[in-house]
Amino acid sequence: MRPRLLLLLFFVLSIAYAQSVQSPSKELSVTFKVDAAGKPLYSVSYKGQAVIIDSYLGFTLKNLPPFDENFIVTTTKTTTVNDTWKPVLGEVSEIKDNHNELRVSLVQQSTKRNMDIVFRVFNEGVGFRYEFPKQDNLNYFIIEKEATQFNLTGNHKAFWIPGDFDSQEYVYNETRLNAIDNNKLNLNNGIALKSVGGRYTIQSPLMLKADNGLYINIFEAAVINYPIMHLDLNVNNFTLKAHLVPNALGDAAYLQAPFNTPWRTVMVSSDARTIVSQKMILNLNEPSKIDDTSWIKPMKYVGIWWEMHVGKSTWDYSGSQNAQNQQSGEAIKVPHGANTKNTKRYIDFAKKHGFDGVLVEGWNTGWEDWNGNWKEEVFDFVTPYPDFDIKAISDYARQQGVKMIMHHETSGSVASYERQLDRALENMVQYGYPAVKTGYVGKIIPRGEYHDGQTMVNHFNYVPRRAADYRLMVNSHESSRPTGVHRTWPNYIAAEAARGNEFNAWSTGNPPSHETILPFTRLLGGPMDYTPGIFEIKMSAYKPGATEQVQTTLAKQLALYVTLYSPLQMAADLLENYEKHPDAFQFIKDVAVNWQDTKVLEAEPGDYITIARKAKGSENWFLGAITDENARESKIALDFLTPGKRYKAVIYHDGKNAHWKNNPASYAIDTQMVTSKSRLKLQLAPGGGTAVSFVPVN
Amino acid sequence: MRPRLLLLLFFVLSIAYAQSVQSPSKELSVTFKVDAAGKPLYSVSYKGQAVIIDSYLGFTLKNLPPFDENFIVTTTKTTTVNDTWKPVLGEVSEIKDNHNELRVSLVQQSTKRNMDIVFRVFNEGVGFRYEFPKQDNLNYFIIEKEATQFNLTGNHKAFWIPGDFDSQEYVYNETRLNAIDNNKLNLNNGIALKSVGGRYTIQSPLMLKADNGLYINIFEAAVINYPIMHLDLNVNNFTLKAHLVPNALGDAAYLQAPFNTPWRTVMVSSDARTIVSQKMILNLNEPSKIDDTSWIKPMKYVGIWWEMHVGKSTWDYSGSQNAQNQQSGEAIKVPHGANTKNTKRYIDFAKKHGFDGVLVEGWNTGWEDWNGNWKEEVFDFVTPYPDFDIKAISDYARQQGVKMIMHHETSGSVASYERQLDRALENMVQYGYPAVKTGYVGKIIPRGEYHDGQTMVNHFNYVPRRAADYRLMVNSHESSRPTGVHRTWPNYIAAEAARGNEFNAWSTGNPPSHETILPFTRLLGGPMDYTPGIFEIKMSAYKPGATEQVQTTLAKQLALYVTLYSPLQMAADLLENYEKHPDAFQFIKDVAVNWQDTKVLEAEPGDYITIARKAKGSENWFLGAITDENARESKIALDFLTPGKRYKAVIYHDGKNAHWKNNPASYAIDTQMVTSKSRLKLQLAPGGGTAVSFVPVN
Repeated sequence: MRPRLLLLLFFVLSIAYAQSVQSPSKELSVTFKVDAAGKPLYSVSYKGQAVIIDSYLGFTLKNLPPFDENFIVTTTKTTTVNDTWKPVLGEVSEIKDNHNELRVSLVQQSTKRNMDIVFRVFNEGVGFRYEFPKQDNLNYFIIEKEATQFNLTGNHKAFWIPGDFDSQEYVYNETRLNAIDNNKLNLNNGIALKSVGGRYTIQSPLMLKADNGLYINIFEAAVINYPIMHLDLNVNNFTLKAHLVPNALGDAAYLQAPFNTPWRTVMVSSDARTIVSQKMILNLNEPSKIDDTSWIKPMKYVGIWWEMHVGKSTWDYSGSQNAQNQQSGEAIKVPHGANTKNTKRYIDFAKKHGFDGVLVEGWNTGWEDWNGNWKEEVFDFVTPYPDFDIKAISDYARQQGVKMIMHHETSGSVASYERQLDRALENMVQYGYPAVKTGYVGKIIPRGEYHDGQTMVNHFNYVPRRAADYRLMVNSHESSRPTGVHRTWPNYIAAEAARGNEFNAWSTGNPPSHETILPFTRLLGGPMDYTPGIFEIKMSAYKPGATEQVQTTLAKQLALYVTLYSPLQMAADLLENYEKHPDAFQFIKDVAVNWQDTKVLEAEPGDYITIARKAKGSENWFLGAITDENARESKIALDFLTPGKRYKAVIYHDGKNAHWKNNPASYAIDTQMVTSKSRLKLQLAPGGGTAVSFVPVN
Repeated sequence: MRPRLLLLLFFVLSIAYAQSVQSPSKELSVTFKVDAAGKPLYSVSYKGQAVIIDSYLGFTLKNLPPFDENFIVTTTKTTTVNDTWKPVLGEVSEIKDNHNELRVSLVQQSTKRNMDIVFRVFNEGVGFRYEFPKQDNLNYFIIEKEATQFNLTGNHKAFWIPGDFDSQEYVYNETRLNAIDNNKLNLNNGIALKSVGGRYTIQSPLMLKADNGLYINIFEAAVINYPIMHLDLNVNNFTLKAHLVPNALGDAAYLQAPFNTPWRTVMVSSDARTIVSQKMILNLNEPSKIDDTSWIKPMKYVGIWWEMHVGKSTWDYSGSQNAQNQQSGEAIKVPHGANTKNTKRYIDFAKKHGFDGVLVEGWNTGWEDWNGNWKEEVFDFVTPYPDFDIKAISDYARQQGVKMIMHHETSGSVASYERQLDRALENMVQYGYPAVKTGYVGKIIPRGEYHDGQTMVNHFNYVPRRAADYRLMVNSHESSRPTGVHRTWPNYIAAEAARGNEFNAWSTGNPPSHETILPFTRLLGGPMDYTPGIFEIKMSAYKPGATEQVQTTLAKQLALYVTLYSPLQMAADLLENYEKHPDAFQFIKDVAVNWQDTKVLEAEPGDYITIARKAKGSENWFLGAITDENARESKIALDFLTPGKRYKAVIYHDGKNAHWKNNPASYAIDTQMVTSKSRLKLQLAPGGGTAVSFVPVN
């Protein structure tokens, strides 16, 4: 009962002002208050149950009086929005934006400085932000700390990763809040650069499950010109406080009024599926700033990439740099992957199997000494290695109707990349590359900056903005995690920014539950380039004795194309591995990456998720179901299918004795005819999955 | 006698190794030693007199063992160089490089790390640097501190400015070493951004005069990929220690072997003129990296600039930003200077009077809110204000045969400038601008960097390097001070990087001695865009009651064109002021800016300097003589003139009762015929000067 006692103590507040606003469904309610000291605070309840109890708001500013007290409310305004809009690419063709807004205008009496706090309450959660209007008494200012709290009601179960300012590529921990402790983590996890902000600092999106069955998620939307918000937990009373990522000087954000902060979000539902299918993060972002989006296209691609991860080739021309060598320190001489002949092989494969694109990493000079040395000038973004005939390759790709995907690894030297960016993008235009995969492995230059600081957030938003001028799409790796900004810059088509499949090749890997958590965390902010589709699951196939493996069954690798939304999806494995399994590969060839509709059928973070999606511009549906380390059975009603239509369902499922560890490659493919009235029995092996394609036959 | 006692104590060193090397003249001698602890050290003597007594060498490295002890000498090598080379632009047409080199190869026994220390001994001084060869035990490393000492023999007179990591725009202080104290300075001096490194931290070039009559100068050459060296003085024993400018993390330099540091220099002579005419700084820099230098041309220019300093127009379009408003805070509405009509007026004037170029500041958007707010995105370097028709202007300038000089003020946001640089330079090419004046007023972004840190040094060197790709010349203002790098990048045609004439318009200004010190300090590193030529000397002409003034006579303003070398020289005053004094203006029209030969005839730092120069490709000579606040008479032998030739000498001198403060505008012009056997009597008013042109008449 200790938490409840704390709650009572907490509530002994003298309140000078209070006003509430509800969601359109009236299930969710937010109350804004000002206490006797003029401190603003808010609370959130869902169906009458407290979700966020009184939590303070405000800021500490550098060399200026604090901005979290002595406020009075001057005006309030409520607005209702009920609108729809169409994303350029997405999980659904049309998105509804239905919310009630409460705008509270405050003035700090001692300083005559103004601030608005704006709440938008959707059915699936609340977003709020601070707005600093243009005013006489606040122009330029520096935020040192943001005082925003998210005070929880109890010792919830949390799906959390440490608050690392340079990386989100962690395995999720699943513990009660009071067991969170970064000091107890095993950090021998394959992440080269770690900058954890504090013992109890954790990342958002933070997925929680309360004992009353509520699913709660703390996140943010529209992070623009502002650092990423991490969260400082008090393990005793379960309060969370914003921890903005600072720069080397300890400053968080350099701002000028007028300015609006990102939205702080609290999603809540008694149904876990509501969290996964929420659209409030997108709704809290600005509409597209690109008028003509005709050149923004979904892509399914193969590429010269996994072969460097499994150690069959190298990024560098001289043949020493691949993920296996880097981990082991051994110098095994293997060929340079990005050569003209190999690239043409991938182009041929892409054409033959209907892939849109081919990514080639290691094409440009600089890879010999690229990693881990905080070196400013590493890569040249326009000079190919001598064995990569960029002109011949781009000509050949064009002839074959295949798009080339450029690769720009910066090794963290943003200074060097920004210097070269225009030339690099011009080079892409010259050779007809429509998209670039960027990479930020390593400590950032300008030195002292973190991946999640304001400077880097600005960089990650700058690249797609500048790329849009050249009509180019961007897929960032090792960037700060997305917060829905791809609504505004829809050419920012994907990001990594979480622990992807690659870790399975050379580290402790991603446990079977990993991909069941991503839809509740990383994917809330935007599409992830997870690079699924690994058929040769055990690394011992490449290196006798190796224990690393992809911690799923083969069938689950197929299901990920549906459960992990991205309009940019890689078939990540080596071409020869697909050629060994043409039947299973057929699903990857068939599956769509851009969608008319999406139905989250089942979901429980850390356990399982089942999603069905209808391809854009087609009557085909695809279903993906995955489970964690436990086997799972489920019966799915196919009522999402169009009534009256008959569909041929091809079911790619785990083999009878399949098991992610002992027998991952075992799969079977069944075909059956179904209608919207059918029910489909899913049988998932431990760490397994099922993928289904539904094609109408009449 | 206290200093001598200290000296004796200092000498109680157990020396394990010693080797000396002399200048070609044998007057200067450097001794390198290793003490019993394996610490390297050196000393310098001149004509048998100690100049630098035993001074330690070495480094503190980050997270690595110290690199200043436990050394043994493995090999030494001596070399003699006697060579000549031709600068693209310069004070002389041919430069002699005659020195003896001692290379000492060291190994640190405890770590097996190697370092060479290389001494080059010229007749006018010694340069030494550290070289880190490629080696197994030292690859990437971070320098925290450089241990280099310059231990002086006594309480010399010093010409010093505080060790400010962001500015050199100070008035020189002239005191004994033991009176140096930054805490005692009046810092109400018009410098907006001050970042003084410590109470006893001072800048190099540091000019000294010893009681034995020796002139000594401590400086550095070829600062590339390394921070600027300031000096920490011990006021008790007169030791100086290198103080490298750090970044926000406290790190000085991020390096990878092989790497050579800048040269640390000690110039010494019993003749002050030797310091002024030294060429060792250039000789210590690498030859030009630009093959075709045909596009690098000297320029004399006028421009829309001084009018903003005196408050007659503004940089910004909306008419609020000029140097007078900025100082006073008053909002006096005056027109925007950089408009098409005004620019054409300057072009017409340039054509009429034979100037090469016209600079226009305030032509591009961003000036409304540009200054002092540490704002990242300020200027757009390609978008002119609506009243500046860049196309019409560049067409008109081309028709008139006048070159336009671009202006890029960054307000310190290097991040933004580097992002835009390629586009900015392409814009210059598009409109036919051959040169750019860059500006760095304000705190640097990336935040935490100083103007003098490694990052900014790299930036200041990057801009001319990149500009060379576009065949463009660069003149940087508020950059780190030059160290002869313009030999290597001869399109880096000038820099400000000291207190220029502009300070006289709106601050305590530059005292009459200022320009007599610059040739012993700032100008040792390279040409300065001082912007002389102010005829309307008192600011009360613009603003009744104003006390600011240029602290010279008018004739001295003319002499500066000769005494302050630069191949880029501005006639800085308003056009109407020149039109009022066509006779005096004739000297500015006539004077050359690129030279065949230079003779320093008289020089005493802080007191006076007289220089004669022969124009390149011409038989004309020009002479400039200036004095400090004291009147001065001198008789100059004209033996630099070609024997047998008769010259018409036009002598622009101070009027009878001229005085920099009471009567600065009084001047007179005499003409006389002279030969190489003539002597010329110079009479300089307090704060005055004389300028002479010599044109052969037969």
